[in-house]
Amino acid sequence: MWDTLWTDIHVATADPARISTLDGYGCIRDAALGIKNGRISWIGTATDLPDTPQKLAQDVRSGQGFWMTPGLVDAHTHVIYAGDRSSEFAERLNGATYAEIAQRGGGILSTVNATRRATEEELLDVTARRVQRMMSEGTTTIEMKSGYGLTLKDELKQLRVARTIGKTLPVRVHATFLGAHALPPEFRDRQDDYVSHLIAEILPLAAEENLIDSLDGFCETIAFTPNQIERLFRAAADLEIPVRLHSEQLSNSGGTKLAARYGALSTDHLEYVTEDDVMELAHSGTVAMLLPGAFYFIRETHLPPVSLFRKHRVPMGLATDCNPGTSPSVSLTGIMNMACTLFRMTPEEAFAAVTRIGAQALGLQNLTGSLSLGKAADMLLWDIAGPHELSYWIGGRRPVHRIFDGKLSKSPFGNSGISGST
Amino acid sequence: MWDTLWTDIHVATADPARISTLDGYGCIRDAALGIKNGRISWIGTATDLPDTPQKLAQDVRSGQGFWMTPGLVDAHTHVIYAGDRSSEFAERLNGATYAEIAQRGGGILSTVNATRRATEEELLDVTARRVQRMMSEGTTTIEMKSGYGLTLKDELKQLRVARTIGKTLPVRVHATFLGAHALPPEFRDRQDDYVSHLIAEILPLAAEENLIDSLDGFCETIAFTPNQIERLFRAAADLEIPVRLHSEQLSNSGGTKLAARYGALSTDHLEYVTEDDVMELAHSGTVAMLLPGAFYFIRETHLPPVSLFRKHRVPMGLATDCNPGTSPSVSLTGIMNMACTLFRMTPEEAFAAVTRIGAQALGLQNLTGSLSLGKAADMLLWDIAGPHELSYWIGGRRPVHRIFDGKLSKSPFGNSGISGST
Ligand SMILES: [Zn+2]
Ligand SMILES: [Zn+2]
Repeated sequence: MWDTLWTDIHVATADPARISTLDGYGCIRDAALGIKNGRISWIGTATDLPDTPQKLAQDVRSGQGFWMTPGLVDAHTHVIYAGDRSSEFAERLNGATYAEIAQRGGGILSTVNATRRATEEELLDVTARRVQRMMSEGTTTIEMKSGYGLTLKDELKQLRVARTIGKTLPVRVHATFLGAHALPPEFRDRQDDYVSHLIAEILPLAAEENLIDSLDGFCETIAFTPNQIERLFRAAADLEIPVRLHSEQLSNSGGTKLAARYGALSTDHLEYVTEDDVMELAHSGTVAMLLPGAFYFIRETHLPPVSLFRKHRVPMGLATDCNPGTSPSVSLTGIMNMACTLFRMTPEEAFAAVTRIGAQALGLQNLTGSLSLGKAADMLLWDIAGPHELSYWIGGRRPVHRIFDGKLSKSPFGNSGISGST
Repeated sequence: MWDTLWTDIHVATADPARISTLDGYGCIRDAALGIKNGRISWIGTATDLPDTPQKLAQDVRSGQGFWMTPGLVDAHTHVIYAGDRSSEFAERLNGATYAEIAQRGGGILSTVNATRRATEEELLDVTARRVQRMMSEGTTTIEMKSGYGLTLKDELKQLRVARTIGKTLPVRVHATFLGAHALPPEFRDRQDDYVSHLIAEILPLAAEENLIDSLDGFCETIAFTPNQIERLFRAAADLEIPVRLHSEQLSNSGGTKLAARYGALSTDHLEYVTEDDVMELAHSGTVAMLLPGAFYFIRETHLPPVSLFRKHRVPMGLATDCNPGTSPSVSLTGIMNMACTLFRMTPEEAFAAVTRIGAQALGLQNLTGSLSLGKAADMLLWDIAGPHELSYWIGGRRPVHRIFDGKLSKSPFGNSGISGST
């Protein structure tokens, strides 16, 4: 007997076995979905159920005709930070130059300083509030990077916050070590020494504490060189830690090819990749993780080559890139709309990008990312006419209900959240 | 004795009497706010309260250190419609041309057809759901236009829905007659006849039923000419109905000057206004209502001249333009972010635009739009570091609590909405 049976739903499964040229979502209309021990134990058309609902599950629930989708996967975030950069945003719009803001201690270093100053408890508190906002937007799996600590103590602090959130909130967390995010002031003009420090001191300890699911770096003229990144990738390979990379965001620095050579789970941003780079990604099976939030926020004009990714069948992922400097964003459906509007991705591609392909980019494709037999019962209910609507609304759409690990969130949110208002 | 006293809050009043070059929001830190009969009966620094809180109000509430702002005013929406255009959005991104979509019955006419087919009850139901989403984003006052009926019966149906929403939901509604939105198929090639029909038949009846707070038109090469709009404005003037106008969105057609001459409450879109137009607006005291949602969604590149509005001190408003074809948007804070990011407005300007100036564009400046003595107690509580944050988040920020007409919504939403989740 199953624990729960959902009926009176339409389902957009994101399951490749159900996706066709006629239906890019893998839909089942008038569907039913069974859950046992937090996993999907049955999925199909309700009329195909093997018995009457009450004989199949202890708990039979009506989805009220809503659409059900997999929980969304946000596979690139810098959500663990302290401090506030909205004043800097305002200063810039009021005419301050980047140089003036940097002189006043603004920019990424202000986030590093605030994150260092915060205790682990304080950092956990502000991060959890942001993660709850992401959850209310439909996210059930989140990648979270370090990279605002940049010291042994503070990088580990960030990574422990990621682990604690995964244990205490109804959300799956993938923790990424991004020590090579920016050069800390202590290592000014000693970039190679900092990379050595990451490799010799921080990475081994973080790995030993089991705080790392993957390693990331920022490969760019203003950040780290391909050589420095490769040293890190080699160290990660020795520890059997998968890698990913920020590459080709502001220029072509060669990071994408390097990452492909190391079988990276994803390469991210990619505005400036060449067709050669794209072919390497196709060969390595790396996800092209596109981040329209940052593109929009910093008013980038050079588009990532969506048609090349299509041509070479490189899977396109989408993520919020939630971070205080270049993408203050918590809504994956808002990002889907930007991907369609700004990058001309189709709504079907955008849907796959935040479900199945997002899960692939985290190595979690066997656990989540589609509504398929045996996968985790992480799902959302939406008051929409159909799955196109998920990409259609500026700023995003919000689910009406959220189910994590088979369990319905006790207090519904979204539309229903205000039903009791005066 | 007051009904309610809010303490333990910081307030961004949007009150011009409190705004200075140092503080564009009119803030009061460690503030208190009293409410009596749905109106603001006291506002100031908590230490200036004339007595101990318990002696001043029956109900003393802690704002838990949150920021309080006026409820937001969305002064340009087409939220009353039936049907769904997200499939059309998907078709276009999958390569269909505008002509193909029009042939399949898409475009604005599909919304007109769906709105005509809907009963008043059905139209009320789908509209109310959208309005509830707007409310959850912080909107407390909404302008709603007709213009998808385009027949006597269906225009009145839309306007009645606006009135019903104003009576049944905790939101203030301003109803605008936009018969001159598009030419209905019944009047093909007879544009002047349609305008005569609006003036002779629909407008007088709608006015008699007290369904109209203002009159609007779409002045554009693809819509109505300045001459046709002027005929409508004259008819409105005879009935003492204020006017507003969609003008200079896609080209300069001369509508803005015309509207200024008729003392319009607002002219809207304005991408293509000239400095001459702007000077006329300054002279007439008309609000320049900017709509970055449509600018973004249709990938317009010609920016409205924000610096000219500043130079000539024309008040800038912002609205969602919520409509199914060019701006599927419900969040005013999301629009504030777009205004800052795309139009380079300052967060201070964006805040005024959705509060005080929005209210002015609806002729409601004595009732709402700022937290000032005697105004309606429509307000929001936000879990933010400061008012800059309202413009900072891509896709917008959501309030934690909402107070309408002095009364707290019974079920909090936003962050708190998921506190009971598993
Ligand atoms: Zn990033
Ligand atoms: Zn409009």
